[in-house]
Amino acid sequence: MATEQDRAAEAVFDALTFDDAGLIPAIAQQHDTGEVLMMAWMSRNSILETLRGGQVVYWSRSRKALWRKGETSGQTQTLKDFRVDCDGDTLLLLVDQKGVACHTGRRTCFYRAVRGRGLETISEIEVDPAKLYHT
Amino acid sequence: MATEQDRAAEAVFDALTFDDAGLIPAIAQQHDTGEVLMMAWMSRNSILETLRGGQVVYWSRSRKALWRKGETSGQTQTLKDFRVDCDGDTLLLLVDQKGVACHTGRRTCFYRAVRGRGLETISEIEVDPAKLYHT
Repeated sequence: MATEQDRAAEAVFDALTFDDAGLIPAIAQQHDTGEVLMMAWMSRNSILETLRGGQVVYWSRSRKALWRKGETSGQTQTLKDFRVDCDGDTLLLLVDQKGVACHTGRRTCFYRAVRGRGLETISEIEVDPAKLYHT
Repeated sequence: MATEQDRAAEAVFDALTFDDAGLIPAIAQQHDTGEVLMMAWMSRNSILETLRGGQVVYWSRSRKALWRKGETSGQTQTLKDFRVDCDGDTLLLLVDQKGVACHTGRRTCFYRAVRGRGLETISEIEVDPAKLYHT
C-alpha cells in the first residue's frame, strides 16, 4: 500500500513539468529567517526520497547522481515545507539548514552582489571548506 | 563612455555561466519581507536593461522576447539588489514588488504546498487576473 508520502509525491508529479533532462529547479529557503540559501535541481527520484525521508535530496548534474545534501559535509537540510509554483516548473523548499549551505563555507550561495561598477562579496566564510570536505 | 551600470553588467557577465539557450535562472525575493515571489529567466540583454533602468526585465521563453515585468499588468518589480551565486549559474534579485507577482493574482507564484496526501492552495487571490490583463 502506498504511504501518504508516496501519494503526495504522485500529486506533486502530476503538477510538475520536468525539463528535457527530467529535472526541475528547486530553491532552498531557510524556513524561519527567509534567507534564500541556494538553487539546485531535483529529479523524480530525488523528490520522492525527499518527501519520504524529510531530508533534502537533489540531483547533481555534474556527478549525474542523487545528491543527498550534507551527506559528505554534514550540512544537511531538513524539509519544512514543499511548494510548487503556478506553472509547475519551479519548486520552493522551506528547509532548516544545518550550518552552511554553500560549498565555500558561507551560509548562502548568493554571497556576491553588484556594488558600484562591480561585484563584491557580502557574506563571510563561516566554516573552513577544508573542514567540510576533509580536503 | 560606459556608464557605471554598464561596467557592473560586464562584471556580472564575467561571473556568469549562461545555459545553451543563453539564459540564466533568476529568483525574485521581496527585499523587506523575504518572501520568494517567483523564478524566471534572464538573458544578457535583460540583465543589462535591468541594471540600467532599475526595473526588472526577464526573458520570456514562451514569447521569445524581453519581458518587462509589469508592462501589461502594472505589477512591476523595482530592483533593490542584484546577487550572483557561487557557481555563477543562478541570480537572486531582491525587489520591491508592486501588487502581485503571479499571473493568477496571488502575491507569490509558490502558492501550492504539500499537505498530507496532496497539494493544497495556501495563498489567496488578491487581484482578479481579468483586471491585470484586461481579458
